[in-house]
Amino acid sequence: MHSFTELSKIFEEKFNTRHFPEHTATLYDPAQYLLQLGGKRVRPVCVLMGNELFDEIDTDAYHAAAGIELFHNFSLIHDDIMDKAPMRRGMPTVHAKYGENTALLAGDVMLVKAYEYLNKMKMVHLHTVLQLFNNTASAVCEGQQLDMDFEKRATVSLEEYLRMITLKTSVLLAASLQLGAILGGTGGGNQQHIYEFGKNLGIAFQVQDDYLDAFGDPSTFGKQVGGDIIANKKTFLMIHALEVAGQDAKATLQHLMIDNPADKVDRVLQIFKDCKIDDWANELKEKYLQTALQHLQDIAVTEKRKAPLKELALFLIDRNH
Amino acid sequence: MHSFTELSKIFEEKFNTRHFPEHTATLYDPAQYLLQLGGKRVRPVCVLMGNELFDEIDTDAYHAAAGIELFHNFSLIHDDIMDKAPMRRGMPTVHAKYGENTALLAGDVMLVKAYEYLNKMKMVHLHTVLQLFNNTASAVCEGQQLDMDFEKRATVSLEEYLRMITLKTSVLLAASLQLGAILGGTGGGNQQHIYEFGKNLGIAFQVQDDYLDAFGDPSTFGKQVGGDIIANKKTFLMIHALEVAGQDAKATLQHLMIDNPADKVDRVLQIFKDCKIDDWANELKEKYLQTALQHLQDIAVTEKRKAPLKELALFLIDRNH
Repeated sequence: MHSFTELSKIFEEKFNTRHFPEHTATLYDPAQYLLQLGGKRVRPVCVLMGNELFDEIDTDAYHAAAGIELFHNFSLIHDDIMDKAPMRRGMPTVHAKYGENTALLAGDVMLVKAYEYLNKMKMVHLHTVLQLFNNTASAVCEGQQLDMDFEKRATVSLEEYLRMITLKTSVLLAASLQLGAILGGTGGGNQQHIYEFGKNLGIAFQVQDDYLDAFGDPSTFGKQVGGDIIANKKTFLMIHALEVAGQDAKATLQHLMIDNPADKVDRVLQIFKDCKIDDWANELKEKYLQTALQHLQDIAVTEKRKAPLKELALFLIDRNH
Repeated sequence: MHSFTELSKIFEEKFNTRHFPEHTATLYDPAQYLLQLGGKRVRPVCVLMGNELFDEIDTDAYHAAAGIELFHNFSLIHDDIMDKAPMRRGMPTVHAKYGENTALLAGDVMLVKAYEYLNKMKMVHLHTVLQLFNNTASAVCEGQQLDMDFEKRATVSLEEYLRMITLKTSVLLAASLQLGAILGGTGGGNQQHIYEFGKNLGIAFQVQDDYLDAFGDPSTFGKQVGGDIIANKKTFLMIHALEVAGQDAKATLQHLMIDNPADKVDRVLQIFKDCKIDDWANELKEKYLQTALQHLQDIAVTEKRKAPLKELALFLIDRNH
């Protein structure tokens, strides 16, 4: 068994190569550019971890892992176009560097390349792997569309936000683990548990991300604290605050979002604290983490094999808030 | 055996359905919108014709045909964004109607849906079909990128234009026919010949399209005659004219493209005629048509089975110019 860090290093060594032809460099260099900016490679490593949970790591798991990482990068290129994001991983986004049209096409060809990696797989798994991959890819597109839809809406319910976040980010983590499990030869029950482990872990991580945006330590968070508040994002915190705040506090929140005063972040945070949104968010995160861990426990393999996944979960979700 | 028209009707009846879920309508309605605008369905029918050349039409051929048509529509959505095209098939383009971000995502999910159709195929063909499909999809992206690159360049050689056009349009026609042939169970030799038939037919069709833009009958052409000249497009005709025109005529062409006078179309056409570009284009078209027909002849099945494909070729390529 390998830890996340060990598998991360093994994957990076294999993945750190040119994935595209040398010709038509005006198309392929922009695609390769994003891949070379790195990233944590959480999803492909989850393919390998899901695989090693049941057996020694199969060559096919590396193909699936590469396919997943290429899919993730495809979605980043297109999301960055849609969000008009100037920076990614501390560098200019693909469209900022090469123009929107080329970025659009580079994303397209990256998605095709993901399918090329999947098609390297042994015939026996190809159909099942493609089915899960296709369902996940559609779900991620749905999540992104809902995210854009929600930006234009005055109110979003917690249930709707949860569904959007699940589609946009959690199902890819869940499917990565399940892909590894499929290639590890395990049955439907274990596959379902590892999928739910990933899905709930992904949601817990998103709750934490929303929490840290509001209450994180600026010296360790990595992003601008209060960024979601400044951008009027409908996060877990804001949605719940609008649901539980008294009439006056709710009206204040709504005015702050429209007026954008200089002290907006501080005043929103004060309302969050008054409504104990920080405690609520920590409890919500803990709830999803516990559900995830319960599904991990229910997988029918020895506890020893589960140690790296449990370690990953507790590493991703910091319980010191 | 069925004619193109018969197969077109059969395909349309099967394809004329909703291909996407009812939920997340803000994503899926825009995708479905384009499919419902119709089109000639040349490529999916070529899958069926390539299949029927060797055997009775297999269920898998309908899956492949649907996959090809969805891929084609995916590329139309994204190309229209890149070209900022307002209209398609006489109606607003997807991005004109629903916004660029949604069109981008609708294209993405259409490509995923294409792979879903391919994944309905019997296991024995899946790997081979995906390999051809992936290669073709990458080639189409390369062709679109080259087309955008050429717009920014002062000169493009005939060889470069031919390569771009082959990638952007011909390989998809060629691959559609070959997909049908693969599913018809024929060997590599026949597959290669039907691929080359489609590729050369596609190039002949593009030469004809470039010719008609300049010399077509406005009452039957369907598009604005002279549109390529107005847009300074580097077509077969313009590229060859710049290669063969005398020094004065070449300088005039270059000035006309920069100055855009009101009589630009007439003056460019006069130079084309002086240089006999019309005769040259007709000969070039005939050359590619003959190469296509030669490959059709070389396919090892009875002549009778080839009749519908020959009829299609002669229908697509009008020899009366």
